[in-house]
Amino acid sequence: MEINPFDDKYFMKQALNEANYAFDKEEVPIGAVIVLNNKIIARAHNLTETLNDVTAHAEMQAFTSAADFIGGKYLNECTLYVTLEPCVMCSGASYWTQIGKIVYGASDVSRKNVPIRDLIHPKTEIKSGVMEDDCKDLMQLFFKEKRENK
Amino acid sequence: MEINPFDDKYFMKQALNEANYAFDKEEVPIGAVIVLNNKIIARAHNLTETLNDVTAHAEMQAFTSAADFIGGKYLNECTLYVTLEPCVMCSGASYWTQIGKIVYGASDVSRKNVPIRDLIHPKTEIKSGVMEDDCKDLMQLFFKEKRENK
Repeated sequence: MEINPFDDKYFMKQALNEANYAFDKEEVPIGAVIVLNNKIIARAHNLTETLNDVTAHAEMQAFTSAADFIGGKYLNECTLYVTLEPCVMCSGASYWTQIGKIVYGASDVSRKNVPIRDLIHPKTEIKSGVMEDDCKDLMQLFFKEKRENK
Repeated sequence: MEINPFDDKYFMKQALNEANYAFDKEEVPIGAVIVLNNKIIARAHNLTETLNDVTAHAEMQAFTSAADFIGGKYLNECTLYVTLEPCVMCSGASYWTQIGKIVYGASDVSRKNVPIRDLIHPKTEIKSGVMEDDCKDLMQLFFKEKRENK
């Protein structure tokens, strides 16, 4: 029996590591990695506070970084692993990258009436719920601590 | 009678200047400026080819630049002037900035079934069609030349 250590859980753990770096910086703890042929080619975490820039989501940085690594603009052979369901901005950015697949952990409960499927590229596959509880727990811990330290 | 030279057309002309810079660089000619109290605090044009980065839309750069100028993340007192109707990514980014108003020139005819109003912040005002023909003509000229030089 062949064992493949590079499954969705493996890469989501790497995205969660990134989310933990964000947590340590008092950023909303969201992390992302981009994978090509079982190799992580980009890692990023939310830096909106640090950079004073609402566009500095983990996914946006990861897209830019992955395109830079590949030397091409399109990520159709790549998979994005991200701890939280991408927002409208990041979904729209993923459309332009034509990314092959998006795997996310927790669902975004604040998401409004526009489903992510309507915003991403028609060729982009999507999978949700990978390590959902871990991703969600980290977010909830962050907001709990924030409320208590007000 | 008081004359106010700082009307929508004045600022859209500035955005068109930016779009022309993009044109000269063989980038899809889209330009943007962000205005606070009749003062331009950010100027940008599309640089997706130059930077090999599909997220380098004029609006994205302008948001980052304006936030940097203000020293705060929110642009609720500002107006974005952009030559083309913002895409899903840029509309989603505008949501996070809570920008006060978006004024655009040409409509995006390739836009799908999600109206921009569903993607931007509920408090963001929107106005379309300012110098629409000039904005559209520049885009059409770009794509015409591109087809002919294939």
